[in-house]
Parts: sequence; structure tokens; C-alpha cells
Amino acid sequence: MVISVVSVHFKPGGQRVEVPSGTLLSDAAAQAGAELNIPCGGQGRCGRCAVVIEAGEVRRRSTAQLSPEDVEAGYALACQTLIEGDVVVFIPPQERIERRLKESKRAAQVELPFPYDLHDQPLRKYAITLEPPSLQDQTDDWSRLRRELSRRHGMEEVQVSLPVLRKLGSALREGEWTVTLVIELYGWDRPEGPPRLIDVLPGERLESLWAVAIDIGTTTNHVWLVDLIGGEVMAQKADYNGQIARGAEVIPRIIYASKGNGLEELQGLVMETLNRLLEQAAQERSISTDEIYKAVVAGNSTMIHLFAGIPPESIRLMPFITAVNQLPPFPAREIGLGINPEGSVDCLPGVASYVGADITSGVVSSGMCDTGELTLFVDIGTNGEMALGDCTWLISCACSAGPAFEGAGVANGMRATAGAIEEVWVNSETYDATYRVIYDEKPKGICGSGLISLLAEMFIAGVIDKSGNINLGLATPRVRKGEHGPEYVVALADETAIGEDIVVTAVDIDNLMRAKAAIYAGFSILARSVGLTMGDIGQLLIGGAFGQYINVEKATQIGMLPDMPYEHIHFLGNTSVRGAYMSLLSQEVRRQVVDAGQMMTYLELSADNTFFDEFNAAMFLPHTDESQFPTVMALLEGR
Amino acid sequence: MVISVVSVHFKPGGQRVEVPSGTLLSDAAAQAGAELNIPCGGQGRCGRCAVVIEAGEVRRRSTAQLSPEDVEAGYALACQTLIEGDVVVFIPPQERIERRLKESKRAAQVELPFPYDLHDQPLRKYAITLEPPSLQDQTDDWSRLRRELSRRHGMEEVQVSLPVLRKLGSALREGEWTVTLVIELYGWDRPEGPPRLIDVLPGERLESLWAVAIDIGTTTNHVWLVDLIGGEVMAQKADYNGQIARGAEVIPRIIYASKGNGLEELQGLVMETLNRLLEQAAQERSISTDEIYKAVVAGNSTMIHLFAGIPPESIRLMPFITAVNQLPPFPAREIGLGINPEGSVDCLPGVASYVGADITSGVVSSGMCDTGELTLFVDIGTNGEMALGDCTWLISCACSAGPAFEGAGVANGMRATAGAIEEVWVNSETYDATYRVIYDEKPKGICGSGLISLLAEMFIAGVIDKSGNINLGLATPRVRKGEHGPEYVVALADETAIGEDIVVTAVDIDNLMRAKAAIYAGFSILARSVGLTMGDIGQLLIGGAFGQYINVEKATQIGMLPDMPYEHIHFLGNTSVRGAYMSLLSQEVRRQVVDAGQMMTYLELSADNTFFDEFNAAMFLPHTDESQFPTVMALLEGR
Repeated sequence: MVISVVSVHFKPGGQRVEVPSGTLLSDAAAQAGAELNIPCGGQGRCGRCAVVIEAGEVRRRSTAQLSPEDVEAGYALACQTLIEGDVVVFIPPQERIERRLKESKRAAQVELPFPYDLHDQPLRKYAITLEPPSLQDQTDDWSRLRRELSRRHGMEEVQVSLPVLRKLGSALREGEWTVTLVIELYGWDRPEGPPRLIDVLPGERLESLWAVAIDIGTTTNHVWLVDLIGGEVMAQKADYNGQIARGAEVIPRIIYASKGNGLEELQGLVMETLNRLLEQAAQERSISTDEIYKAVVAGNSTMIHLFAGIPPESIRLMPFITAVNQLPPFPAREIGLGINPEGSVDCLPGVASYVGADITSGVVSSGMCDTGELTLFVDIGTNGEMALGDCTWLISCACSAGPAFEGAGVANGMRATAGAIEEVWVNSETYDATYRVIYDEKPKGICGSGLISLLAEMFIAGVIDKSGNINLGLATPRVRKGEHGPEYVVALADETAIGEDIVVTAVDIDNLMRAKAAIYAGFSILARSVGLTMGDIGQLLIGGAFGQYINVEKATQIGMLPDMPYEHIHFLGNTSVRGAYMSLLSQEVRRQVVDAGQMMTYLELSADNTFFDEFNAAMFLPHTDESQFPTVMALLEGR
Repeated sequence: MVISVVSVHFKPGGQRVEVPSGTLLSDAAAQAGAELNIPCGGQGRCGRCAVVIEAGEVRRRSTAQLSPEDVEAGYALACQTLIEGDVVVFIPPQERIERRLKESKRAAQVELPFPYDLHDQPLRKYAITLEPPSLQDQTDDWSRLRRELSRRHGMEEVQVSLPVLRKLGSALREGEWTVTLVIELYGWDRPEGPPRLIDVLPGERLESLWAVAIDIGTTTNHVWLVDLIGGEVMAQKADYNGQIARGAEVIPRIIYASKGNGLEELQGLVMETLNRLLEQAAQERSISTDEIYKAVVAGNSTMIHLFAGIPPESIRLMPFITAVNQLPPFPAREIGLGINPEGSVDCLPGVASYVGADITSGVVSSGMCDTGELTLFVDIGTNGEMALGDCTWLISCACSAGPAFEGAGVANGMRATAGAIEEVWVNSETYDATYRVIYDEKPKGICGSGLISLLAEMFIAGVIDKSGNINLGLATPRVRKGEHGPEYVVALADETAIGEDIVVTAVDIDNLMRAKAAIYAGFSILARSVGLTMGDIGQLLIGGAFGQYINVEKATQIGMLPDMPYEHIHFLGNTSVRGAYMSLLSQEVRRQVVDAGQMMTYLELSADNTFFDEFNAAMFLPHTDESQFPTVMALLEGR
């Protein structure tokens, strides 16, 4: 490689400098006297040194803090970018970068996953005008409507419920014999129909057609409001599942459901959460929740049982059987979901007690079923559920990871919202912590990505050892004995919004270790069960709402994710709600979800006596078998 | 005709007498000194002179007070029976006759209307044993059940609701993987299925299979509990419709339903009544109402709308349109009917606003659709609904008769239960009244048959004139001015159970006159609309729960029924509930009800400007046109 000299022109200051090709952009800026903000010290971790390459060739070593759209727009991290030709570089005002980072924490605009055609949509609206009745034609309202539907649209044998019949007469008369009908022409369970009349509205009301995709996580619930005219996601809402107060994981909830009216209570709690989110989403679009005519719901098997009010007891008892993996669609009124009471609620199918509709939905939305490449898919939530395979075969398993990564079950844990510490850096000499907070507010707690980052930094800096024990001998007041044993202070009281220190305790660390160990043990067993090793895996797809914010480098350092080239790891966000969304748009996708469930072999880990060994082996940082983490070991040796 | 002498032998007394053939049995008894009780004076009205013809030939002139079973058993009314050969007559103890009369007021045992075959019944029970799940076969409960249903019974695509799925898991485990399934294989609306799973019970529970036929009258509700294993009616219950307090007729109820939460209130009231009756019927058979898995419901269009909670407003407004004539079947839980919540509620179809399912049901159960004879069918209830035709054509109409004949809207009116005066005789000289009370208790009021009898007797005795006015000049304290105008005392306070006089007022008489006039006007218009006269009518079939107790002679005297030979008049009892019962037993009958509704032409009386004339003409006793009542006129002239 011939090293040539290239020229760098910084805007808006106008500084120019000549440097050898291959020079880091941040070094060139320093040489030119162009001021850049590099709080993480040039490790590509904070994203604050983002600049825009307006012209010329560069090579980005890492874009971990940039979205594909950022890169497309020319953004590059100055500390991670090598200059390869004459370039013009624009240094945005620091304030603009901060706003960009803030925006990226908001729900990203969801793109249409495929071209959407309203004519393939089973949910439809029809405006129809009837001949008014007279003494000569005393045909009843319902027969009159059916007569016209048959004449105009060839629709026969339309199904109708009592609640719709109850409003028919007044809608016809209020609309002066013109009404808008909301009809579901067919469903996955009745591909040939008959059509089902869901609502009748006075007059012509064709302007919109709303539906909703729902993901019921053990810890977090997500609601995407979709306009089925254009197919786009128009609002996204999320909150903790109201059931958390009755148990952080599925097992305590199943036990709770089996006592007294626990089942009704848990159903009521999740419905409260969902209905609040639905209300918020509807408000954001200035519509009534009654205008939402369909819901597709994903979630793990226990969550779907509780949502539908079906006793989940047998899920936790040998031999771990669900009451039902595939519910028939039912009207929302039957469970009190706050959309139009006649709107269909379509729960996606699960595979087994611990591989539910969130995984079938996730596997389909991840594209895993369309690829020939050996793919490992993992949904990092309260349960670590994962699937291995490609377009021809699928095997899945689940391990109870616990809610630690969702910020629950950790002393200062919180969801990834305003005020959450989302990234932490621990100084290897002073053991002081610096951090980045969502929306740059004073910190209130630590979210999942922050916890992974924290665990990794504490390990790399030597605050904890490979077993996760806090080193109480360090010369820093940040390491101390707290009420609940050893702890490390991440943020001091005077920096925080809560007026107290934000800490991570030995108990928290144990929870995080168990979570990451459970996930990695699952990976290992899946691969081994089909005679493969982790090295055979072509790509790793990571689902789960918080997954998109994980720092791969950090997740690998703690041994949660396998040590593989970053470019083979893809963060897909909440694949569960995304699969529900795609199923709303396309019956073809809806069928694929069923097919994925039927094609998927389920590996019962509790019947697999190697799980405990694998779990114990993974209860070290990064792992007992260091050879599986060469990159991490190289880093440790380098320090 | 040669008059011969015949011998009569009375038992148990042993008296013998010889009389000319053709002698009245009561005269022969008097001649022989055999004591008979003849309180009505030998008019065949009281039934107290019933004797048993043990041997020999007699001719019964009237059997109005005897059931067909009585006649079959040899009973004859001594005052109405001519001796035609040597006979042996048994005079039962008076006490035995009274008990027989009491029994006859109880619900008569309902015979199977046709041979019943359980294999033609769409509602079925199946006991089924599943292979228990294991770690090797983690199939979910619902799929496991469907798999077995498919294997054993070839049943695919079984429909299930959330409430049934909710109990599936515990039923399977409680029954140790043997369960009894209640399945509706098909329905009139889905003749090809799919089957619908209604209940799942632990263990084998094949001993019974309950359903119910319901008739919702404006005034009275009837419930027949049916065991679908044998097809027999096992309990019959009736009571006033709880809606009466919100209006005696359909129009005031429709108005009430249109205000505030009037509709919900009316629905709740009828449901209270029905659920109480269901509870009573279930108690009588020592079952739980949850074991009742189907209801077939008949009733007029307004009653069906209110029962289903559908606003009936348009029924009373020009051009008088129902919201729906044929409801799809729905689960009982959707309206709170007190049978198994998943049990199908199948409302029979109506024809128009004022010719409802009670008439289609009645017409089919009356056999009118199977005969070639010109038949007039009338259901005497709060609305006088009637149909004219035969197996090839049907025309129907309805006139608001009011609830007077059901004992409502009359000062001392009551239902035909214990303590009701059911027959009255007025002495033409003293104007005193004697009466018969159901169960021979002290009287509490007057039921419908008593009111017809009373009106006729007052007219014949001259207490009222042909316009229905009470003759205040009569020399009897029974005729007087009361609080609400002129009145006639039927029973004196010291004879009654209520401690007050039982009276009939001028207002009551006006109500009764209007009711009978409306019914007769309907008959006239129906016949004339097809170019026929009352004389062309081959048979008159009378439905309505109280119809079976009407004294034809009296009903003709007041001009309510046409003056035709008694043997062409048949009382069928409650044809509406009977049609519902027959529809429970046979899908073929269920289809006939639909066909009858479709075949029936509806004559809208409010659009017929001759109705008012006909009604006014009938507002006299027996009628303005005396030539239509030759028998009655002959009787009046004879007095």
C-alpha cells in the first residue's frame, strides 16, 4: 500500500491540513486546530465526535453509534474514521449532534416492510346507499343491507354480531340510508370467508382505517398504531407491563394466576397497560380508540394465556403444556381490549410453553425464514428465547434470562426513557465513571444497554473480577459496602435527578451475570443439538425492544453475545411487534407465522441435562472457555 | 229414526232405569235417583257432572270441559251426553272430579309431536379419552383434543370460544384425560358446520342433554325444559313478563326503550323473569341451569328485539320496520340468558313488525302448513296475530288486542293460576254470580277465560247492554257506582282471599270489548283481502297459552270468535312455545319455520283504511252485523 498525502478541509471554520492517507480524522482535526468534542477519549463509544464527510474518501472503522441513515447522510465518527483521499469535512455544532442523539432514542420511523396493497387487505371499508323502506317494502334493516351488499359487491352470508345489529337501525337513519361498513372479508382461520361485519357508521367515512400491532412482553408492552389505508405505523407507545408488581418473571405470575382471582387480576393489569397505551396512541393521532378495528398480538405463551384469561398453570408443571398455542380470533369486547369492541383480536401462534408467538413473529419478521445462511436469532427479553436455522429448518429453545436487561429487578434499573444512563465508561486508573444519559437529563437510573456497558467496563477496568465479585480493595470511594452488600457508585447524588447515588450492587451484578449466562448457554446448546459450533453461525440477529441499543463490543466483552465479527451481528429492534405489524399488512406473512411455528422444533431445556453445565460455564466473564472469546481475551491481555 | 228403549245402570249405587234412546244422561240419573252435581244447571259449562261410561253407546254433544284423554278414558258430561244404547255409567265421587279438574289446570304433559331420533339432533355429547402429554409429546391441550376428535369422529375445524378454552385445561386434568364434550354439529345458519364446542366436562357425563324452548309474550313468558336424549318436555314454567310494569303493550314499551337506558332496563326485566323460570324448571329436575345447552326462542318482533337488546324504535314509526327479522344464533352469555353461557340462543324468525316469530312458530306447530283445508289461525295474546291460508299460501296480520285476556290491564285481573276465577255464571233473575276458581281456593281475581265468561254472562243476563254499558237501574246491590265509575261485583269481600270485593268495572269492560273487537276485525279483513268470507273457513285454530281454557260458547256470544260449529274450532294451547320446542327437536321443523316466514304475506292493518270501520262494527255484543252470529241471536231471542 502506497502512503500518499491527502488534504483535509474542515468547515465551517475553514481550517485546512495535509496528512498521510490513513490518518485518523480526529488526529487531522487536532493537527488543524479544528475543535472536536471527544468525551470518551476516542474509543468510538460516545458518538459525540460525529462529523459529516461532504466530499472525498474515508473508511469508517466503526459506526456503532451511527444509524444506517446517519452513514447514508455522510456522518462519520472522527475518532473511528481513516482519511483515504482529499476530503471536505463539516463539523456540526455540538448542540446539533446532541439533538441527533436524542432523536435516535425516540421511536424510529418504521418503514413499510414491503410494498403494501390495500386490495390485499382483508379489513375493508365500504360506503353503501340503500333504498329507504316504505309501506310497499317493509324489508327489515338487516335484510335490506344484505340485499344491497349482495347486489353491489356479491357478498353473501355476511356474519354479524348482536352489538352491530344493535346500532344498525340508528346508523341507517342518521346517515339517511348511506352508511360506511367496516368488514373483515376473511381471516387466517377462514380464508374463504364468510365476511364479518364489524361496524356500521352513518354516512361516508372512508378517510381512514386503523389497526394496531401489540407485543406483550413479560416486562414491557408495545403498541404500534397502523393506518391500513397506507399501511404505515402512525404512533408507537411502550410501557412496563402492569403485571410486574405481581412477579417479575413468568413463573411467579403463573403461580399468582393460580390463586384466588389472580388470573382475572393479571388479565386486568395487562389490559390496563395496553388500554392506556392505545389511548395515548389514539390521542397522538386525534382519533377515538373505537376507530381501531383490528389487533394482531404477539407475546410469549404465558403472556398470551394471561391476556386471554386462560389459566396458564400447566405451563410451569411437568411436562410443561400450554392450554392452547393458537387461539382463534375473537372480538375485543370478550377480553376488554380497548379498541372497537367488535374488532378482531388475532393472537399469533406459539410453539410451546416457552417459545411463544413473540418468537414465531420475530423469526418471520427477522427474515430468517427467507435466508440460506445459518442464522441464530435471539429475542433478548425477560426470557431469552432463540432459534437457529435457515429457510429449511428451525430449532428453538428458551432460557429464563430474567428482567435485568429490561431494567427491572436491578436496584437502580429503569426503562430506556429520558433520564436513563445508557452508556458508561469506567476509568481504569481512577475507577471513576462517566456516562451518557438519554436526552442529556440528570440521570434517574440505568437502562439495559447501560447495565451491559457498565458490567463490561467494570470488568475491563478491574472493578469486578471474572466471577463478577466487586473488588473492595480498590482505592476509590465508589466501591463500598452498602445496605445490601458491596456496591459500585455509577453517579453521585449531586449529579442525579433522584437526589441519591445511582449504584450497582453485588446482587444486581449476579442478576446480570445469570441473565447473560442463560442466553449464552442457550446459544451453545442449540448449536450443539444439531451438531454445529458457534463458529458455523453465519449471522446473529438480535430482536427485543432494547436490543437495538446494545453496544455489541460490550455485550461480547461480558460473554453475552458470541465473539464474532460485528458486521455479522444485526440489531432488529422489537421483532415481535414488527411481526405483528407485518401480519396486519399481509395475510401471506400471517400464514408464514403459522408455518414458522409448525416448522420449528422445540428443545425443552429443562429436559436437557447439559443446560446446567453450560449455564455454569457461562457464569464467568466472559466465559470459562476463554477460547470462545479471542477478541475479548486479546483486549484483556493488552491492558 | 226409531226411538227404542234402553237400560241405564248407575254405579256404584246400583240404580237402574229404562229410558227412550236419546235421553240426556243427566235426566236419566234424575229419574233413577242417582245424585249428580250440576252447579251450572246443565249447560255443560262447569264440568262437575262428569261421569264414566263403562259400557254402551252414548253421543257427547259437548266435551268442552273434557280433555281428549278424559274422553278416551270414558268420561262424559252427564248434562251433554245422549244415551244411544244400554249403558253402564260410573258416577265418580265429587272429590275425585275436583281433583281431576285441578290437575287439568296444571301444565298438561306434552306429548312428543313426532318420532324423535337423537341421531338427527345437532346438539350432541361425546365422551373422549386423550393420551396424556409427556416431554416427548408437548402438544397443547386444544390441539391434542382436536387431534383426537379428528381421529375418532372425523371432526375437523371445530369452533371454540375463549370461555371454553379457559376451562379446557382443568377439565382434562380433573377428568384424568377423559372429558365429555358438548358439541353443536351444525345449525340452521351453518348446515354444513363447522361443529361448535360448547362445553367440556371432566369425565364421562352422557346421562342427559338439556335444552329449553322459550316463548316471550308481551304479557306472559313460558319456558319448557326439554331433555334432548328422549326429546320430552320435563318441566313447564310460566310467569308474567317483568316488563309489564313499564307498559302493558308493545307500543308503550317501544317508547320506554327509546328513552335513557330504557332498552337495557327492559332487557334486564325480561331476562330476570326468564332466568327465574329457568331456575325453577332446573330445580324441578334437580339440575343446574349450566346444563342447559341450547334455547330456541319465539316471541313477537318487539319482544325479540328487547330480548336481544336491539332498539325497536323503528317498529312503531311509519313505515314500521324491524331492525332484523332473523337473528343469527348467539351464545347465551351475550345477553345474560341464564342457561350455559356458551349455549346457543336461536331466535325464530319473524315476518314483520307486528307478525313475529310467535306466529311463524305457531303456524308451523299448528299444522296449518300441512293441510289443504282453508284454515284461520289466531294467537290470542296481547297482540291478536292471525294467519289465513293452507299448505300453499299464507296471509297474516296483527291487531293490538291489549293484555286484557291475559288478566292484565283489568282491575281484578290475574293469570290463570291458583285462586283465579275461571268461569262465571250470572243468574238472569237475581243477577247474582256463581263461579269456579282454579284449585277451588278462595278467589283472588279473574283470569282471561273467567273474563270472557263473565262478559258473556253479563250480556246474556242483561247486566250490560249490547254496547257494553252496565245497567245501573237493576235491582241488585251487585251493580253500583264505584271509585272508577259503574261496576259489577263478581265476588263479595267475605268470599274472597283478598278481603275485598272482586269487581269488573266499566273501564275493564271497555278494555275487553276493544280486545275482542280488534281480534274479530282482523278475521274479517284477512278473509276479505283474499275475496273470502268467514263462512269459507274450514277450521279455526286457536293458539295462545290461555286459549285452551276459553269457553267457545262464551267467546262466540261476545263476538270474539266467529259463530261456527264448535267441532271446527280447535284449541292448541301455546303454539308459539310449541313451535320452539319442535324446532329444538328437529332441524327439518326449524327450516319449516323459516319457510313459513318467507311464504307468508303480511297485511299492514295501519295501511288498510277499512280496519277502523271493521273495529267499530265489532265494538258491539256480539257485533253490529247480527247476521254473522245466528246462534247467539237465537239464544238471545229464546230468553
